[in-house]
Amino acid sequence: MDTHLRTLSLAAEDHRIVNIIDQRLLPHELVIRELRSYRDASEAIKSMTVRGAPLIGITAAYGIYLACLEAPDDSDAGFDAFLREAGTELRSARPTAANLAWAVDRQLEKIRYGTDPQAKIKLALEGANQMRADDIESCRLIGVHTLPIIERIYQRKQLTDPQARVNILTHCNAGWLGCIDWGTATSGIYQAHEAGIPVHVWVDETRPRNQGFNLTSWELSQRGVDHTCIVDNAGGHLMQHGMVDMCIVGADRATRRGDVANKIGTYLKALAAHDNQIPFYACVPGSTFDLSISDGLSEIEIEERSPDEVRFIQGYNIDHSMVSVLLMPATAKASNYGFDVTPARLITGIISEHGLCEANEAGIMGMMGK
Amino acid sequence: MDTHLRTLSLAAEDHRIVNIIDQRLLPHELVIRELRSYRDASEAIKSMTVRGAPLIGITAAYGIYLACLEAPDDSDAGFDAFLREAGTELRSARPTAANLAWAVDRQLEKIRYGTDPQAKIKLALEGANQMRADDIESCRLIGVHTLPIIERIYQRKQLTDPQARVNILTHCNAGWLGCIDWGTATSGIYQAHEAGIPVHVWVDETRPRNQGFNLTSWELSQRGVDHTCIVDNAGGHLMQHGMVDMCIVGADRATRRGDVANKIGTYLKALAAHDNQIPFYACVPGSTFDLSISDGLSEIEIEERSPDEVRFIQGYNIDHSMVSVLLMPATAKASNYGFDVTPARLITGIISEHGLCEANEAGIMGMMGK
Repeated sequence: MDTHLRTLSLAAEDHRIVNIIDQRLLPHELVIRELRSYRDASEAIKSMTVRGAPLIGITAAYGIYLACLEAPDDSDAGFDAFLREAGTELRSARPTAANLAWAVDRQLEKIRYGTDPQAKIKLALEGANQMRADDIESCRLIGVHTLPIIERIYQRKQLTDPQARVNILTHCNAGWLGCIDWGTATSGIYQAHEAGIPVHVWVDETRPRNQGFNLTSWELSQRGVDHTCIVDNAGGHLMQHGMVDMCIVGADRATRRGDVANKIGTYLKALAAHDNQIPFYACVPGSTFDLSISDGLSEIEIEERSPDEVRFIQGYNIDHSMVSVLLMPATAKASNYGFDVTPARLITGIISEHGLCEANEAGIMGMMGK
Repeated sequence: MDTHLRTLSLAAEDHRIVNIIDQRLLPHELVIRELRSYRDASEAIKSMTVRGAPLIGITAAYGIYLACLEAPDDSDAGFDAFLREAGTELRSARPTAANLAWAVDRQLEKIRYGTDPQAKIKLALEGANQMRADDIESCRLIGVHTLPIIERIYQRKQLTDPQARVNILTHCNAGWLGCIDWGTATSGIYQAHEAGIPVHVWVDETRPRNQGFNLTSWELSQRGVDHTCIVDNAGGHLMQHGMVDMCIVGADRATRRGDVANKIGTYLKALAAHDNQIPFYACVPGSTFDLSISDGLSEIEIEERSPDEVRFIQGYNIDHSMVSVLLMPATAKASNYGFDVTPARLITGIISEHGLCEANEAGIMGMMGK
């Protein structure tokens, strides 16, 4: 029986309930919440109880399924009107999440082919389950293409030290918490761990929102992967002193030439990896490529987020409550760019569900079969 | 009359009292504390009420002066025994602060020439005042040598934009709070500001101890210097997009070839500056050079500090109390290297009280008059 924890699952005992992990309480408390209506799903997305682009999309897809269960089934018109309303609400739960709208639209399109409410419910559940299964498989494949890289490093290190472990640095959270299972950057790490390769992960804190400490450290410990938390300032020093064998990060957007936008600070780690001849890989699912753009630095607009994310930090108090504390003079200004662009020249390779390629146009087009 | 705030001053109304800023409460509260005995001075050093190598040394020098005021003056032997005891206690207040022992020993040596207790008190006060004045002058001179660099950038930017300001990124706190006045990396910034050059400082948070947000932001605002607080991850992005004109940092140790050890994360900013052709300067007082070593990476041992500095962070709560909150899973490991080494090849120039030089052996030896 599969007992391993995932971010979202149908309740085993009642398929009208969707269970999710409340990610707002991580890493301090593990609370599973039940979604019993499309409004629950919409609220979970809005409140960031679930986060990460794939997970948001899949939560919305199950939201449409829940809406089908709730919709009045006395008339086709009533059912359809209810669904339209649910779709609108789910689509607007987080306005900038592109695959949220995509997932909702795909579900609404799919259930149009149902001849009656029962058929529509079945199609919506199949659609959501398929999206969830596709995400798991896509993440698994990214790991399949990452694993040989880790294996080669392990074999090379073993020649001189049989006790050697593979030290991998990652930034932010590109793990299973943003997806359903495996994650992207973490997928190869989990597969190496399962294959018995001793891996050790350096987990960047990832200020300002601390996804490394809050999410990556927690999810690695759930699966028993050895790791150490470090401040974002530390990676360069570790690389200078041979304590990092490779870097693996996720991506928010990648261009046809292989420039990769990812969480702010990724570029600094890529510079340090390059300066110390350490391989640096970006995991980029096919859907994350934007092949219409070439030059990441000039063509990707970087979102500026609320300065309060920099001014305050949330942590766990001695009385076991979450508190937010001020970190700077109350009147000081703060700036908060969310992402930066790592130029292709600093990236050793790009890994997607389709394979591994060089970070350039020929490599990417070949991998994507274009 | 000079009313501007300094880290340590004799009380104007009573020269038997030394006033210091309680730096543990910054940036949230400004509290001046009185040192009335050598034990007060020792306690202030031990508790990090004062911090920063120059300020620690000068506080200890005034501690010897306070000990002279307290010592029994009925016999030379009793006076001297009391002073020896005070010296031992002050020297051990922070074991790794090299110039703490140096300052205490210099004071004890100086007062040996006093023929009676009154003469010794006078010599101790003169000695402490001299050390304080020397530090102010040394920091001022670093600024004198930095100012022309800022002026040239300003003049160049003005050619295309009369509204241009000079954007300077700094890491950690190399400001007047660690000294008496001016600071090292900040000295040229304050002098440019006083000269009417519009400067704007990007202040790195500097995790794990947040000296940028706690100290640098506060001290810049005290002197009216425009600045913006950023997380340590942000500098690379700002440099890629032309938002940084130069970087200026301090130093904890520098080699004869110009490698500079400074707060962890400095190396990452130097890499980004180099990658974007942005000048990167290190301010290194003469006393900070260790001319007995050449290669910073192999010869400077980097201190590992308590993981709790990474695991917890201190901030200001809504009820106006300082609280410390946990930032990661309670059982997760953390690592905490305090410094990193920036290789000379990434440093545009080194600035000391003696002048500006290239970051190489010939430059440094020439500047130091060796």
